Amino acid sequence: MITSQQYLDRIAKMRPNIYVDGEVIGRDHPLVLKASQIIQSTFDLAEDPEYSKWLKTTSHISGQEISRFTHIHQSVEDLLLKQEMTRKLCNRSGGCVYRCMGCDAMNALSVTTKNIDLKYGTDYHDRFLKYLAYFQENDLVGCAAQTDAKGNRSLRPAEQPDPDAYLHVVERRADGVVVRGAKLHNTMAPYADEIIALPTRALKKNEGDYAIAFAIPADTEGIYLIGRKAFSQSREEGLEAPYTKLGSIESFTVFDNVFIPNERIFLDGQTEFGSELAMLFALYHRHSYCGCKPGVGDVMYGLTALLADYNGVEKTSHTREKLAEIASVVELVFAAGVAASVKSRKAPSGTQIPNSIYCNVGRRHAGHNVYHEYDILCDIAGGLPATLPLSKEYNSPVVGDFVRKYTKRREGVSAENQYRAYNMASDILNGDVGAALLVAGVHGGGSPIMEDIAILGTYDTEGKKKLARYLAGIKE
Amino acid sequence: MITSQQYLDRIAKMRPNIYVDGEVIGRDHPLVLKASQIIQSTFDLAEDPEYSKWLKTTSHISGQEISRFTHIHQSVEDLLLKQEMTRKLCNRSGGCVYRCMGCDAMNALSVTTKNIDLKYGTDYHDRFLKYLAYFQENDLVGCAAQTDAKGNRSLRPAEQPDPDAYLHVVERRADGVVVRGAKLHNTMAPYADEIIALPTRALKKNEGDYAIAFAIPADTEGIYLIGRKAFSQSREEGLEAPYTKLGSIESFTVFDNVFIPNERIFLDGQTEFGSELAMLFALYHRHSYCGCKPGVGDVMYGLTALLADYNGVEKTSHTREKLAEIASVVELVFAAGVAASVKSRKAPSGTQIPNSIYCNVGRRHAGHNVYHEYDILCDIAGGLPATLPLSKEYNSPVVGDFVRKYTKRREGVSAENQYRAYNMASDILNGDVGAALLVAGVHGGGSPIMEDIAILGTYDTEGKKKLARYLAGIKE
Amino acid sequence: MITSQQYLDRIAKMRPNIYVDGEVIGRDHPLVLKASQIIQSTFDLAEDPEYSKWLKTTSHISGQEISRFTHIHQSVEDLLLKQEMTRKLCNRSGGCVYRCMGCDAMNALSVTTKNIDLKYGTDYHDRFLKYLAYFQENDLVGCAAQTDAKGNRSLRPAEQPDPDAYLHVVERRADGVVVRGAKLHNTMAPYADEIIALPTRALKKNEGDYAIAFAIPADTEGIYLIGRKAFSQSREEGLEAPYTKLGSIESFTVFDNVFIPNERIFLDGQTEFGSELAMLFALYHRHSYCGCKPGVGDVMYGLTALLADYNGVEKTSHTREKLAEIASVVELVFAAGVAASVKSRKAPSGTQIPNSIYCNVGRRHAGHNVYHEYDILCDIAGGLPATLPLSKEYNSPVVGDFVRKYTKRREGVSAENQYRAYNMASDILNGDVGAALLVAGVHGGGSPIMEDIAILGTYDTEGKKKLARYLAGIKE
Amino acid sequence: MITSQQYLDRIAKMRPNIYVDGEVIGRDHPLVLKASQIIQSTFDLAEDPEYSKWLKTTSHISGQEISRFTHIHQSVEDLLLKQEMTRKLCNRSGGCVYRCMGCDAMNALSVTTKNIDLKYGTDYHDRFLKYLAYFQENDLVGCAAQTDAKGNRSLRPAEQPDPDAYLHVVERRADGVVVRGAKLHNTMAPYADEIIALPTRALKKNEGDYAIAFAIPADTEGIYLIGRKAFSQSREEGLEAPYTKLGSIESFTVFDNVFIPNERIFLDGQTEFGSELAMLFALYHRHSYCGCKPGVGDVMYGLTALLADYNGVEKTSHTREKLAEIASVVELVFAAGVAASVKSRKAPSGTQIPNSIYCNVGRRHAGHNVYHEYDILCDIAGGLPATLPLSKEYNSPVVGDFVRKYTKRREGVSAENQYRAYNMASDILNGDVGAALLVAGVHGGGSPIMEDIAILGTYDTEGKKKLARYLAGIKE
Repeated sequence: MITSQQYLDRIAKMRPNIYVDGEVIGRDHPLVLKASQIIQSTFDLAEDPEYSKWLKTTSHISGQEISRFTHIHQSVEDLLLKQEMTRKLCNRSGGCVYRCMGCDAMNALSVTTKNIDLKYGTDYHDRFLKYLAYFQENDLVGCAAQTDAKGNRSLRPAEQPDPDAYLHVVERRADGVVVRGAKLHNTMAPYADEIIALPTRALKKNEGDYAIAFAIPADTEGIYLIGRKAFSQSREEGLEAPYTKLGSIESFTVFDNVFIPNERIFLDGQTEFGSELAMLFALYHRHSYCGCKPGVGDVMYGLTALLADYNGVEKTSHTREKLAEIASVVELVFAAGVAASVKSRKAPSGTQIPNSIYCNVGRRHAGHNVYHEYDILCDIAGGLPATLPLSKEYNSPVVGDFVRKYTKRREGVSAENQYRAYNMASDILNGDVGAALLVAGVHGGGSPIMEDIAILGTYDTEGKKKLARYLAGIKE
Repeated sequence: MITSQQYLDRIAKMRPNIYVDGEVIGRDHPLVLKASQIIQSTFDLAEDPEYSKWLKTTSHISGQEISRFTHIHQSVEDLLLKQEMTRKLCNRSGGCVYRCMGCDAMNALSVTTKNIDLKYGTDYHDRFLKYLAYFQENDLVGCAAQTDAKGNRSLRPAEQPDPDAYLHVVERRADGVVVRGAKLHNTMAPYADEIIALPTRALKKNEGDYAIAFAIPADTEGIYLIGRKAFSQSREEGLEAPYTKLGSIESFTVFDNVFIPNERIFLDGQTEFGSELAMLFALYHRHSYCGCKPGVGDVMYGLTALLADYNGVEKTSHTREKLAEIASVVELVFAAGVAASVKSRKAPSGTQIPNSIYCNVGRRHAGHNVYHEYDILCDIAGGLPATLPLSKEYNSPVVGDFVRKYTKRREGVSAENQYRAYNMASDILNGDVGAALLVAGVHGGGSPIMEDIAILGTYDTEGKKKLARYLAGIKE
Repeated sequence: MITSQQYLDRIAKMRPNIYVDGEVIGRDHPLVLKASQIIQSTFDLAEDPEYSKWLKTTSHISGQEISRFTHIHQSVEDLLLKQEMTRKLCNRSGGCVYRCMGCDAMNALSVTTKNIDLKYGTDYHDRFLKYLAYFQENDLVGCAAQTDAKGNRSLRPAEQPDPDAYLHVVERRADGVVVRGAKLHNTMAPYADEIIALPTRALKKNEGDYAIAFAIPADTEGIYLIGRKAFSQSREEGLEAPYTKLGSIESFTVFDNVFIPNERIFLDGQTEFGSELAMLFALYHRHSYCGCKPGVGDVMYGLTALLADYNGVEKTSHTREKLAEIASVVELVFAAGVAASVKSRKAPSGTQIPNSIYCNVGRRHAGHNVYHEYDILCDIAGGLPATLPLSKEYNSPVVGDFVRKYTKRREGVSAENQYRAYNMASDILNGDVGAALLVAGVHGGGSPIMEDIAILGTYDTEGKKKLARYLAGIKE
Repeated sequence: MITSQQYLDRIAKMRPNIYVDGEVIGRDHPLVLKASQIIQSTFDLAEDPEYSKWLKTTSHISGQEISRFTHIHQSVEDLLLKQEMTRKLCNRSGGCVYRCMGCDAMNALSVTTKNIDLKYGTDYHDRFLKYLAYFQENDLVGCAAQTDAKGNRSLRPAEQPDPDAYLHVVERRADGVVVRGAKLHNTMAPYADEIIALPTRALKKNEGDYAIAFAIPADTEGIYLIGRKAFSQSREEGLEAPYTKLGSIESFTVFDNVFIPNERIFLDGQTEFGSELAMLFALYHRHSYCGCKPGVGDVMYGLTALLADYNGVEKTSHTREKLAEIASVVELVFAAGVAASVKSRKAPSGTQIPNSIYCNVGRRHAGHNVYHEYDILCDIAGGLPATLPLSKEYNSPVVGDFVRKYTKRREGVSAENQYRAYNMASDILNGDVGAALLVAGVHGGGSPIMEDIAILGTYDTEGKKKLARYLAGIKE
């Protein structure tokens, strides 16, 4: 396991291929240092006794101590710990922990590479295990790249006017393949070590070139990380807060004829496993959501309660009902993750796979309620998050006293604390980070309708119709 | 363990004190035989290999084989099995299983009697264990009587103009106490062996007479069971179905100066434990709901899917979205029960207590959605459940052919099967049993607002405010 | 205009063709007298000064005073008055007024018969006007029969294995046509003078035999009214109440080779007008819903507030929020009807047609919320509606005093009044009439999805996309 | 009536008292020019034949042509036209029109000043009419300042530790009064000519100093406008769009011992009219919301439909259902405004007052659904609004082609148009303006719970309970 400084030093050496604000920058740019703070904390907190129980574990292949973010889940307990770790870290970041995607992708690969081999006698799983050893030993940060550009959504990959609408193999060589296409919505790709690319959907027999999965350094020739920042509004010194560390650079990742060597290819052409892999990654990621969404929800609950307290209305029925509503969403989603862990199963590879129905109902409930949670915070906070004067006015010798005087609420709470609480509400409700989390809350790990599809695809509908037929007295 | 016939023979001997349809009837009356069918099945199915795994267990006090309905939960596994048992039995009844209340009350008593003794050096727990031995050995059916008449709901028990608005002790004797009052909403009291009475709310120091809990045969002198039937519309022979076995007689139970001997008193005067006991029964009952509501939801899902199938619209987006919605409610509630079991704790008495937050968010979600589930069934079924001709018309030599001809839907489904499916929808949406289950779905085990209160009462609000303060940079 | 007695005398003479409870009965049967009470009141109240302003109007063809239920709307004012009349009458019945369907069907026919003539030079409108004169002069009660049996819902009328799945012409003669099929969900058909049959959906060119509309006496040879009753639970004398007058016999109406004379045919074969007529009837009926749903909602609101008042909790936040929710549904639906009236247009026939978008959003909102309103009543009422002892127990010399004692709530409200209020809640939440209204609330006048279809079919989607393009700076 | 240039010239002369970005600026600052674009358009569009019908009207006092934004509504027609004007202008701005508040405040003052005079024989209405003449003649832009700082929300104005928590009179002189306090959430105050201050809540007899209303130039000595900007992310030339003109500077407005001359005081000390005035302004403003929320909703609908179209999924059930949902919210809110206009009444001053119930249910429905509408746009748009590369990347010689290639969707839509549509979605979902409108959508014109209070305060609850009592057979 490495330190955050080692991580920063490592990525600083990478080829500059991040395009943002009209420039191309490297990983030593202040923007990257700022955006990667939460990732950095995943290294730092591993040594913090309050967190190490969750952040450290033992590799089932090397027996070495590793970060849980690089671990392949071996048991129910592993799944429960991962879910708790995610919640605890999101409690501390106030938003995303950003590092689960790579972990989820690795777990999905661990299952599918084995399944392909079992059917086709290939050696993907060995390749994967070698890569895993490297990944664990170096405590790598992986970015899962799944969502393709997709072009016309009513057409399949092979039917698109532009064949690059879905990432695909454009050339096969003895030592590897060349791929072209783009993967969208890659949070933290600009400060990941590796990009792990996976198919985004079920594929047909004739779509073999689209059934491609691999892992590759993020600065590989031909990769362009087109970035978009999301940070909280900057504050004058003295008014900063841990919440403002939250932020990211999203990437629109282009693969412009990128060569992937054989040892980094984990699926190539077995279309039925393309589908399996896409579903498995989504499944692991939805399980992560059953940890992170409650983690963020805890903060939403806490901030709502804090503002209500500061305003002197914490005990009103109206406030209490709203708090119960947030608590209910938070704990139902978490309960779904617990049930998914408890009702998990072991794959042939030995990897523990969480229950699909519970992961999906949990993620679905989270996604259906994320705008609702913001609505509640907005309702209780009142209009001030949108109109709160910023830190320059707070510190102004002319109007600063007014700002402090008129943001004061009940006795016993200082103007600064009141202002800080509102500033955080403002960052959530009216800032770039809050908005990015909201969109991620709806679409990350699968848009709400994807969960409906996943649920109905695996639910025992016939068994339940049978119950109804029995009760109705229908003999068939 | 006994057979359903032994149960029926036993209750047939009880004093007739059921007032219904303007008569007083005994437990050998056809109405009672009919209403107790589901209770009877809890004896019969214990011997059915498909169910015995759940229905049979071993007494932790006698080591004998007993019904799980008389068991005191000793482990996480016990709680999980009880939840599954409830779901499985509700799958088979299509509604309530009616026998969990007694079990939930016994479990609550097992905890609180010990806790009182630990504080006051009393012997309630011994009394309870003797009663438990008798209860298990005889495979008794218990009815939990909790909800008092309450009078003016804005007044406390001791403030009511009529002191009997809450059940209370009116006389104390050397060998026991005399109680007066009423308990409302006692499903299946008319065919229970025993009534287990518990306080309904938190009590103040001066309300000691209201802090009373006991178990007593349901035909004890002074008890009046004022009944109200809820059965499905009767059908002509040949059109009956298992679903029509579902039904009950609800009781408005009056205690008119009833003597309770000392050995049957499990709480008397310790007001703080009155509150604990009320909460614990509600908690166990809400845990039961996390099994039964999914069990009934499975049937709602199955019937909705079956009608959609018969109508030829099962694959439409509109239907699929509604099915996903039911599945999501069903499995989130079940997941909450699983998490409550997994995160349970052991009481000093050795009894396993499910986690309060998860039981409450599960029950709350069920209660918030029960009308919604009916709405979905109604939506997909169309108007026919309300206007379906009844069985006399179905069998009529004049118009029967018309009924069959015009209720036919897609090819491959007989008119009778179609009719049967709609008849069941009609029983649910337009019948007395369906309506009773709907009201129970909202209020049974606690009205929706009670779960809000329970959640906020135990939720770590301060811990979450601390998270918000940390993130906002507030030092206090 | 006639009296209710004249109406009863008139229908008493009709051929007995109502099949219910295993019998065939005539309109002089006590069941019909009971079921027709609300219809009777539409005659009686016309003479009541509190209602005559709405119930009486002047025929635009004869200049005579007529019932508004037989009127063809000529102006915005007419539409507003009809909406208000419906609300007022539903306030008084507590549920449906049952007579609007005939009125809505006549208005739809008034428009479409003219439109057919304008296109084809036919004489349907003259036929219609003659029929209208007869209808108005005799103050007839019409039942609109629209919903066909439909068979497999994924097939069109002409594709059904059984051609009778949709009502259609099976023979054409010089003096008329013979029809066969069935119309479902015909509330009050058993005590209507006339059945007005309309197509239920859009039709294709080759479905001319299904494009048939006519009006015919309800006892015409070949018509079978297969009935299903929905009444409140009967009460012992002294406990009856106006609410228990509400009730109906629903009809599953079979047309077994029924001859329709030419003068009673208003559409025959012009398939494009079949669609128009189906839509127009639905439109008028949805406008009626914007009056009746608020009317019933007023009663739901009033009863919820009354029970809260009796329980001493009327001023709690929880109650107030629920009341605001009902009020909001009620008044938004009513507002939609007002806007539909104000933004109405005149048809070539001179008939005023309400605005389609407003009628549809109003009806949709009502349908989406009807289960929600019951949920609120159930929530505030508590469990008692399901378990309230019935009138025989209330009047029992043995247990009657107990019932009264323990249903008492706050001081100042007699036990009887409290009991009466709960009895009404019980009829709504746990009775046949309440359930029938609930299903009608979802499906009457069109199931919720039908309103979505109607809205998107007429909404200016292109105009709104144009706004978005303009704002986005897209030039096309 | 004046031109937008005249307006800009006029405000350019005002004393610089806007504090934003750490500076104090005047109204000739580019920020103000930018923020006032929508206000400017209210002058420009008055001369546009497509808008002048709504924007121009005739003063009832001078007979001169005036802007409707300075008009006192005299009739149902006036209210309907104002509602339509607001919708049309919001269609064109894509968000707020910003100028209605002044109009709503003036209308409220027109009513209350007369009512005070009628009771107390004062001359407030004359003062008001003189001010109105000046306001209309100069085509002034007014900012309504209502919401006080409020301090501890559980305390009344007179109970606050800091008496300035609510704006109040601190000194009375012969020629006027001196006031101190702050008004929050004053959108557009920095580019308004006048600030119209009104009480924010009901007041008690002893709170006369808080019962103060006046109008005063926005640069009056002692007024500090502490600003906060909300603009869309700036775009490189060539990619700008009309939507990016939307934006504002919100003001936290401090009155630090501001002198108000007598002729500008419209309420002083009559506490019961403080309440009336607060309610009336809210009422007029909620009526405005019944125009603006549908206007913004039209744009949300259009953009959602446009993106669905571009993605090739416009006809899917999932999309259609979401569109129907937006359309339903839009038109119910608009219908509520229409009903409020149609059911309006005339005040003693001659001013037309919209119906309170309909304004409130309309505003409430809008406020309850604004987060829901964003959720729908987010759902249909997918994750791209959050991760869309910005214009510098779009125009980049290195990666610009990639951005265009991979944002392309269905054939027939250019990459630029697709990008533009997503850029607008990004501004709404992930930008400052979109977020500000969201908070305003919840709280502007009154937070959701304020509408509940307003509804229940005026709803005929007793009349509806009477209906329930009648139907239940309760005689009282």
